Amino acid sequence: MKLVTYQAHVEAAPRLGVLQDNTVVDVAEFGAGVGLNLPSRMLDFIDLGPAAVTRLQAALQAARGDWGNASALPLQNVKLLAPIPRPRKNIFGIGLNYLDHVAESSKALDTKPDLPKEPVVFSKPPTTVIGPDDPVRHDADMTQQLDWEVELAVIVGTRAQNVARETALSHVFGYSLIIDISARDNRRAGQWIFSKGMDSYAPFGPCIVTADEIPDPQTLDLWLTVNGVEKQRSNTAKMLFKVDELIADLSTGITLEPGDIIASGTPEGVGAGRDPQEWLWPGDVIVAHVEGIGTIRHPVINSTPSK
Amino acid sequence: MKLVTYQAHVEAAPRLGVLQDNTVVDVAEFGAGVGLNLPSRMLDFIDLGPAAVTRLQAALQAARGDWGNASALPLQNVKLLAPIPRPRKNIFGIGLNYLDHVAESSKALDTKPDLPKEPVVFSKPPTTVIGPDDPVRHDADMTQQLDWEVELAVIVGTRAQNVARETALSHVFGYSLIIDISARDNRRAGQWIFSKGMDSYAPFGPCIVTADEIPDPQTLDLWLTVNGVEKQRSNTAKMLFKVDELIADLSTGITLEPGDIIASGTPEGVGAGRDPQEWLWPGDVIVAHVEGIGTIRHPVINSTPSK
Repeated sequence: MKLVTYQAHVEAAPRLGVLQDNTVVDVAEFGAGVGLNLPSRMLDFIDLGPAAVTRLQAALQAARGDWGNASALPLQNVKLLAPIPRPRKNIFGIGLNYLDHVAESSKALDTKPDLPKEPVVFSKPPTTVIGPDDPVRHDADMTQQLDWEVELAVIVGTRAQNVARETALSHVFGYSLIIDISARDNRRAGQWIFSKGMDSYAPFGPCIVTADEIPDPQTLDLWLTVNGVEKQRSNTAKMLFKVDELIADLSTGITLEPGDIIASGTPEGVGAGRDPQEWLWPGDVIVAHVEGIGTIRHPVINSTPSK
Repeated sequence: MKLVTYQAHVEAAPRLGVLQDNTVVDVAEFGAGVGLNLPSRMLDFIDLGPAAVTRLQAALQAARGDWGNASALPLQNVKLLAPIPRPRKNIFGIGLNYLDHVAESSKALDTKPDLPKEPVVFSKPPTTVIGPDDPVRHDADMTQQLDWEVELAVIVGTRAQNVARETALSHVFGYSLIIDISARDNRRAGQWIFSKGMDSYAPFGPCIVTADEIPDPQTLDLWLTVNGVEKQRSNTAKMLFKVDELIADLSTGITLEPGDIIASGTPEGVGAGRDPQEWLWPGDVIVAHVEGIGTIRHPVINSTPSK
C-alpha cells in the first residue's frame, strides 16, 4: 500500500489516505464502511502494528474499487502533506553511507576519506519536515552553502531494542523519501544538527510504501535534479551499511519506536562535492525520486529575515 | 513555582503537581476546586502559555494552604518522574560551554582547545529521559567509558523564531537539571548523538522551577558527586554562551517550541578530563544539584544484554 497524509482542501484537517490508482481513499472512512475501526492519522495507524496493515490490505482487495461512503478523491485534487507531518522525535540521519559520497565529502568538507567502521548518526528536529511542493527556505544571513541530498527513508513499525540484523527488517513499517538539506557552512565543532536541522530542511514524501511491497530495500534507484539537471543518481544497493544493519546498530543503544524515521544516507553528487561547488539559491527547483516510492518537487525560496 | 510530574503510587497515571513546602498538590484537581480549568500533564500546562502560570500562582497564594478536595501528598510518599517524561523532540544539548571544560575536553577527547565561536549543538532522543532515582544503564558490550555531566536545563515556554538576545529569556518557561550521560567511546565521525543518545542517558528532574523565580539563570551553583565524592562544582555564571544567547542563536535556524528542552552544557570535572580518567560502573551512585532547583540521585546498573 501507498499511504499518504492528505488535506481534501486547504482548510481541511490532515487525514490518513491510501493511494489506489491515482485516487486517495480516506482510510478511517473506508474502514468504518467495512467494519474496521481505523484511525485518521498516520502515526496512530503505525501504532496499531502489522495486523492493521494486513487487515486494511485485505479489505481494500475485497472492495474491488467500491469505496462505499468513504471520501475518494483524485490525487491531483488533494494537497499531500509529509506522510508523518510531525514526527515524535528527531529524524535519525545517517552520514557517509555511500562509497563515492565518502570520497567527495572528504575532499570538500571536514570528514575523513576512510570508510566509516560504524554508521555515522546525526539528527534533524521535527521542525525540519515539509511536505511535497512546500518550499525549502534560504536564509542568506545564515548560509551561502545550501546543499541537497536524496535519501531512502525508513519508517519504523515496531519497537526495536538490541535486535539482530537477521530480524531487523521485520521492524520496518515502510519506506519513503527524504531530501536531507544542509547549510554546509553551519557545522559547529563537527556537529551536523545545526547545519542539517533548520526549519524546512527535510522535504518528506510523497507517501509511505508499506514494507511488504519492498521486500528488499537495497534495490532501489534514486535520483535528484536541480532545475531539471541531474545531480545525483545511484541505487540503494550501494549503501555501505544496509537498512537492516542500520536498525540493528542503532538499536544497540537507542530503542527505536513506532513512527521513528531513519534517513539512510545519500549517494555522490551533492553540491559540496562538485567542481566547482554548486549551491541552492532562491528560485531553484529540486526534484527527487526513489524507485517504487515516488517523486517530490520543492522550490527554494528566499526567507532572509527583513531588517 | 516548583512543578513536578508525579505518581501517587506505582500504578497511578503520571500527573502534574506543584510542590508547596514538601507537599505535592495536584494542579488539575486544585484548579477545578477554584474554578481554573488546568491540565494534568506538564506539556499541556506549558502549552497554555505564561498567563496560566500567573493564574495558578495567584490561586495558590489565595488558597493559603487550603487545597480543598485536591490531592495533596507528602513529597516522600509520591514517585517523581522526569518533569517532562516524554519530550516531543530530541533534547538540544550544548557542548563545550564552560571554559575549563573546553580545556579538559581538548586534552582527553577529539575536540579543539579553541573556544567555540558559536554554540556547539547536538541532541539526545526522548528515549534518553529518566526520572529521579531511575537507574542509568551500563552496557559493557557497548561502553567502557561512561561519563557524567551536570547541566542546567532550560524549558522553552513560547515559540521562538529569530528572537533577539534581549528578549530571549521571555521565551523561557522554567529551569531544571539534566545529567548529560555519555559513552565517550561511541562517537562516530565526531558526531555525539550516538554516544550521548542512548536509553537512560538523560536523568532529568526533580522539578521545573518557573522562570519568574530565577530571573537571572547565570547565578546558579551546580555540582555533581559520584559515590559521595565531588567531581564537578561550578556556577552558571561561567557559561561561555549564556542562556539568552543560546536561545537567540538556536532560533536563527531552528524554531524553538513550547516544551523544548536545552541542556546548556557542563563545567569541568567530567570523567574523561581527569588524570587518571574515571568512568561510571554498575554500583556507582551519581548525585547532581543545581541551586534553586534541587537534587537528583541515580544509581548505575548493569544492563549488558545476556547472551
